[in-house]
Amino acid sequence: MENLGYYNGETGPIEEMKVPMDDRSSWFGDGVYDATISADHIVYALEEHVDRFFNSMALLKIEPDFTQKELAALLSSLVKKVDSPVQMVYWQVTRGTAPRAHAFPQGARPNLWIFLRPWKTADPARGQKLVTVEDTRFFHCNIKTLNLIPNVLAAEDARKAGCDEAVFHRSGRVTECSRSNVHILKDGVFRTAPADSLILAGIGRAHIMALCGKLGVPVDETPFSVQEMMAADEVLITSSGVFCLAATHVNGMPVGGRAPALVGRLRDALIGELWDYIAARGGAARRGGPP
Amino acid sequence: MENLGYYNGETGPIEEMKVPMDDRSSWFGDGVYDATISADHIVYALEEHVDRFFNSMALLKIEPDFTQKELAALLSSLVKKVDSPVQMVYWQVTRGTAPRAHAFPQGARPNLWIFLRPWKTADPARGQKLVTVEDTRFFHCNIKTLNLIPNVLAAEDARKAGCDEAVFHRSGRVTECSRSNVHILKDGVFRTAPADSLILAGIGRAHIMALCGKLGVPVDETPFSVQEMMAADEVLITSSGVFCLAATHVNGMPVGGRAPALVGRLRDALIGELWDYIAARGGAARRGGPP
Repeated sequence: MENLGYYNGETGPIEEMKVPMDDRSSWFGDGVYDATISADHIVYALEEHVDRFFNSMALLKIEPDFTQKELAALLSSLVKKVDSPVQMVYWQVTRGTAPRAHAFPQGARPNLWIFLRPWKTADPARGQKLVTVEDTRFFHCNIKTLNLIPNVLAAEDARKAGCDEAVFHRSGRVTECSRSNVHILKDGVFRTAPADSLILAGIGRAHIMALCGKLGVPVDETPFSVQEMMAADEVLITSSGVFCLAATHVNGMPVGGRAPALVGRLRDALIGELWDYIAARGGAARRGGPP
Repeated sequence: MENLGYYNGETGPIEEMKVPMDDRSSWFGDGVYDATISADHIVYALEEHVDRFFNSMALLKIEPDFTQKELAALLSSLVKKVDSPVQMVYWQVTRGTAPRAHAFPQGARPNLWIFLRPWKTADPARGQKLVTVEDTRFFHCNIKTLNLIPNVLAAEDARKAGCDEAVFHRSGRVTECSRSNVHILKDGVFRTAPADSLILAGIGRAHIMALCGKLGVPVDETPFSVQEMMAADEVLITSSGVFCLAATHVNGMPVGGRAPALVGRLRDALIGELWDYIAARGGAARRGGPP
């Protein structure tokens, strides 16, 4: 199949999939999600993503009627049904199906949604253009929820400006991007916003921080400002779908570009981890670039 | 019919209605809504609600492919198809159907959703029990969006405490409730939070403020605190579905009850406006209570 949609056991091409009008996503965006990519029909960093997903559910008091192991097995089997070996693997759970009423529906079972689509990783050599946007989001950004309107508006601001991503900041304090984390390198130190309720602590963020440790690069989780970002040696974007991209412009002004060797080492190591993971599970150990 | 669901021209019982998986509500909660009630199969305060709905769409940059007049005519015709003369009349628009990507889908047409269900207005004589909840929402509360997870969590907190509604406050400053506005009466003055980005300025709120003007009750839109609410003569909840209810308890402590005559006058006038509106459009002019 070219792509695949899944809803509570039903599958089909995404364009043909339908869901009940009274799913709690419809009226409240009442659910959580997670996503990663696959290579060679193997879901990358599956356990970490499923673990974070269960954490998001717990924070939103959604009780799954499946285990982490069952979900992981389901995702692993579905990626084999889609032609493209490299896919975006996305899943979410919503709080059930019930007549619209704010409080939790009593006795409703959560709904499990999945979709898989061909994925093309961004060219790591292409410098990212960013815009800054005031962060007007709620204080539950540590939960990967379906309440994403401010992220949508920020991503649209970036698109309209001919840019790739939007950097959120709260009165000058950088938090994250509309769909990725942002970090800076300055004087050999890797700086990233702390993992509080203002950001979604990405799996890519965790990986690059661990790699910094291995490479002897100090990691500093003190919040940094837009001003510090503009003056950084490098501005980096990470996510499970893009790995590690360096920015060349913020709001049209040039940034970074002063530690390209370190960026290259971090990126190569991040992508190397993917191929090691895939090879350990029976896939090819292709080197030299993202999937 | 007992109830009615509508999606882009398709209609049926809500339980049987299905929507495309790739509707933007599914992944982002990317839409806005409005709601009111009907009496005698006439939609109450229709023009005001449709006007606010168009304002919500404009603030979220969703371009409707229908006019206010067309939407009003559609809602007016659909309420005649449902048996119960008193209905909850709910409608929303989402940003279209497209593969999941944050920025606005280019060329997608907005999706129009409607549902109608029998509605029973709360007994005005029953005192409301409230709980207070820290307001952790985003700074777009002036838009009636589908990003309602904090409202869902607050409503659930109220339900679990055996209460009717949750009052949001930002570090002690009262904003609104999970699905209604909250006001206080103190020394003959009606106080309500200002209509900024921290609250959704209800139609019920606008009506009661106008009635205060007619009755010679001064209106003060200076923010008030939880402490001031606890010490108020009356604590009032308004919405298009409940009209005006007085609270008797907040967090288990008794509140209000010191200006019942004024509450009664305001409530009777609010409900009187409904029956005048219905009668002016060919419905009955029943007096003496909510529909």
